[in-house]
Amino acid sequence: MSKSKINVGNFFEDFKIGQIIRHAAPRTVTVGEVALYTALYLPRFAVQSSKAFAQAIGYKDAPIDDMLVFHLVLGKTVPDVSLNALANLGYADFKFLAPVYPGDTLDAVSEVIGLKENSNRETGVVYVRTTGKNQRGETVLSYARWVMVKKRDKDAAVGATVVPDLPKAVTPAELGKAVPAITVAAYDKALAGSPFFWGDYDVGEKIDHIDGMTVEEAEHMLATRLYQNNSKVHFNQYYESQGRFGKRIIYGGHVISMARALSFNGLENVFHISAVNGGKHVNPLFSGGTIFAWSEVLDKAEIPGRSDIGALRLRLVATKDKPCAEFPLNGADGKPDPAVLLDLDYWAVLPR
Amino acid sequence: MSKSKINVGNFFEDFKIGQIIRHAAPRTVTVGEVALYTALYLPRFAVQSSKAFAQAIGYKDAPIDDMLVFHLVLGKTVPDVSLNALANLGYADFKFLAPVYPGDTLDAVSEVIGLKENSNRETGVVYVRTTGKNQRGETVLSYARWVMVKKRDKDAAVGATVVPDLPKAVTPAELGKAVPAITVAAYDKALAGSPFFWGDYDVGEKIDHIDGMTVEEAEHMLATRLYQNNSKVHFNQYYESQGRFGKRIIYGGHVISMARALSFNGLENVFHISAVNGGKHVNPLFSGGTIFAWSEVLDKAEIPGRSDIGALRLRLVATKDKPCAEFPLNGADGKPDPAVLLDLDYWAVLPR
Amino acid sequence: MSKSKINVGNFFEDFKIGQIIRHAAPRTVTVGEVALYTALYLPRFAVQSSKAFAQAIGYKDAPIDDMLVFHLVLGKTVPDVSLNALANLGYADFKFLAPVYPGDTLDAVSEVIGLKENSNRETGVVYVRTTGKNQRGETVLSYARWVMVKKRDKDAAVGATVVPDLPKAVTPAELGKAVPAITVAAYDKALAGSPFFWGDYDVGEKIDHIDGMTVEEAEHMLATRLYQNNSKVHFNQYYESQGRFGKRIIYGGHVISMARALSFNGLENVFHISAVNGGKHVNPLFSGGTIFAWSEVLDKAEIPGRSDIGALRLRLVATKDKPCAEFPLNGADGKPDPAVLLDLDYWAVLPR
Repeated sequence: MSKSKINVGNFFEDFKIGQIIRHAAPRTVTVGEVALYTALYLPRFAVQSSKAFAQAIGYKDAPIDDMLVFHLVLGKTVPDVSLNALANLGYADFKFLAPVYPGDTLDAVSEVIGLKENSNRETGVVYVRTTGKNQRGETVLSYARWVMVKKRDKDAAVGATVVPDLPKAVTPAELGKAVPAITVAAYDKALAGSPFFWGDYDVGEKIDHIDGMTVEEAEHMLATRLYQNNSKVHFNQYYESQGRFGKRIIYGGHVISMARALSFNGLENVFHISAVNGGKHVNPLFSGGTIFAWSEVLDKAEIPGRSDIGALRLRLVATKDKPCAEFPLNGADGKPDPAVLLDLDYWAVLPR
Repeated sequence: MSKSKINVGNFFEDFKIGQIIRHAAPRTVTVGEVALYTALYLPRFAVQSSKAFAQAIGYKDAPIDDMLVFHLVLGKTVPDVSLNALANLGYADFKFLAPVYPGDTLDAVSEVIGLKENSNRETGVVYVRTTGKNQRGETVLSYARWVMVKKRDKDAAVGATVVPDLPKAVTPAELGKAVPAITVAAYDKALAGSPFFWGDYDVGEKIDHIDGMTVEEAEHMLATRLYQNNSKVHFNQYYESQGRFGKRIIYGGHVISMARALSFNGLENVFHISAVNGGKHVNPLFSGGTIFAWSEVLDKAEIPGRSDIGALRLRLVATKDKPCAEFPLNGADGKPDPAVLLDLDYWAVLPR
Repeated sequence: MSKSKINVGNFFEDFKIGQIIRHAAPRTVTVGEVALYTALYLPRFAVQSSKAFAQAIGYKDAPIDDMLVFHLVLGKTVPDVSLNALANLGYADFKFLAPVYPGDTLDAVSEVIGLKENSNRETGVVYVRTTGKNQRGETVLSYARWVMVKKRDKDAAVGATVVPDLPKAVTPAELGKAVPAITVAAYDKALAGSPFFWGDYDVGEKIDHIDGMTVEEAEHMLATRLYQNNSKVHFNQYYESQGRFGKRIIYGGHVISMARALSFNGLENVFHISAVNGGKHVNPLFSGGTIFAWSEVLDKAEIPGRSDIGALRLRLVATKDKPCAEFPLNGADGKPDPAVLLDLDYWAVLPR
């Protein structure tokens, strides 16, 4: 009887094309979350750090860090979508669409947009389109994500394969939706920490962010619980000691937030992640590892209708225990450098 | 001269029947405490997690988690009541009487209601009735607690034994005082994460909450400091390395909060702990242990005058490094299973 | 090209007398920071802990802990002033000048007031006057600080030596500026935790604060990131494992805050640090160490024009793994006891 009350997560054969999942645990985001996020990663972007700075340039309040919004939305989907996932395979068409401010409440809905059983019949790929909304029902974040999920029963019948057609990159016209009109004259470069605006970055430019940050068990568990992400592998040493790696695996999003915060040194005015084109967690991270990061400007774009901000398409690479002066990515054999943790392709905006 | 300025805590012979102790350190509880509590335990009950959800059903704001209120009230009593305690023996007649919201300020008063010297004359049991109040003087929490306290001087004279008559359980008529009238129709089960209301639980039903959470030193110290609980055994490795266990002992309340958060999986709509009938910290927990939990429905009750909510009397058992599929409690010899940390008997409420 | 976008910090020869540095990362301080500060150190001073208590005696709200204000202001200066520092040499003329409340935004400016190359020509001492301001441009904190900074190039020419004339102590007339007029009759001694006011402390009195607190890696890193202090030695085990000590060095300010919180036991009503006359980080602290503390009343002073509060000049000494019943400071050889971490000389205020 009690079994039926427990959420053991969905298995591949439980998902149906077109299925709508309203996720549990709506969450009010406050200055409490903001302070913890600062304590976990050391972000220093002026727009998110200072209400006075944000208001001077046109925001209603200091907006919540984009990645904190993402982690909260993703966390809600875990119990329904990825509790039985073996791997997080990818993201696409990932766009921030409205700013989130302290006091806003977030909830999330996912639609199943693709299903593809693997040939071993033991797993399959589930594609969802997840939408995060605020208390007024406005969409603040929308993304497609696909994960490899176990089947409960190898012999269970599954429907026809559907693989959604997802864009390789978000187009410039879709960027900047979460950024109000910015009064660039009021943007104080000295307070923000850098004289470099959109025009100062060149395609092909690489930046070694030089700093490194070591991660402790308590830190990543605090972070992941803050996001109400209950994926078991991050928290349960009793089980993980018997598992694949013998230790807890750090939530991949922790690496993204750390790398983003490290990227302040060189990208000080790049105050908003507007969209993610794709990304890969190349290797897992464990407690005790030190994260380093580097960036490359992949592209630049004007945003139609916006003379205040411009967009940079950036690659953000994070490594473990390896400084990035030589921009590590692939080895001589063309395979990923084993020190690489993350390879993220995103659009960010900064003043013009 | 300086000695007299230092609080070394009260010893058994310092307490007098009827003595009123106003505890120090009033505390304003804010969204900062709420965020940290989330990061420490991963609670996901919608009422406490979302201001929008709470307001929709009838709260003024998202209420502060009950156990956070308890930890803050208890923390205030430690310097006066239990700094020289050898054991926390029990709780009774423990009732939440008004909701606490972000911005409220809590203080606490205790009355000594019982004293009983032990036959070895080295220790005695002190019974207090502690009352937590908000800034308007309203009682938000009231409980009786008894602890074993050292004597400063074995030969010190003590008064007559007084053992208070405490109820074995809080009665249903006393429940739900901290819950405003709930608009059940506005209670969104999908957002809350479960279709099960009061009528769906049966007496005798057992629920294995399946998830487990490992505790690190930094986490339990952050928690216990957050509660301004200055009990030495939790913080001071220099002394504890020479002590009974050779290591810091985790605050028992940390286990309660963790087990309560784990119980979300199976008790998603059980949004409020209304009263505690009794409870026991069966074994101590140390850093590195993984907490699991299970629950049993001991009783069900209607609350007089309340058609919106009903009460479940629950046993909450927490274990260390032992999954709970077999509901561990006592061994074949009738003695407590050495893996059991906590055995708590409480009344909770959920929508009908 | 990218090199020029990276902040590698200033070297000795980069500083010029009279140079004004506006530091990056303005920061809104909120109840989120307050809660984390409590969780990190266990302060229990009633004025900062309770909005109701603070308002009853004359504050607009519970003020932000003085040392939290200091850490935030100092943190802003690190990327410009001390990223290439080998040692933090001293502080002088350090005064809190206005209260900071949740919601205020802090930024910081420094002026270079002294420069002195060391005889080895590899390093020099940089003196700055740093001013922390709120969003209305009011100065909340002002201090002189001097640090030993590396030269980029040993052979670089430097200007003439300028050593500023700094006062040995802040005068009583300069104290209490950050404290509004206090209604002493409304100051509830029982709630604050002690009957002792200004008149109850004697010059020469020493107080052993008896409690001790062990520090974990995750804790000091959370703290230092909360302050947006990006000094590398605190965070990067990859580099520090090859460094001087083989491990991360805990931010000296973490020790100050911990010792200040420990000093509550004996200084319960000493609710505000008004000025720092000088101070020294005698030895570094590493994770796993347990901090103890003791205080000595060095002097007492009335504050001109203030009958509500009086000032105590206090020495605050923190030790590592050494209880303070014997007030450790110097060994028999006159050299600092190797267990001593901190020797701070400050003015504090309390009700009269």
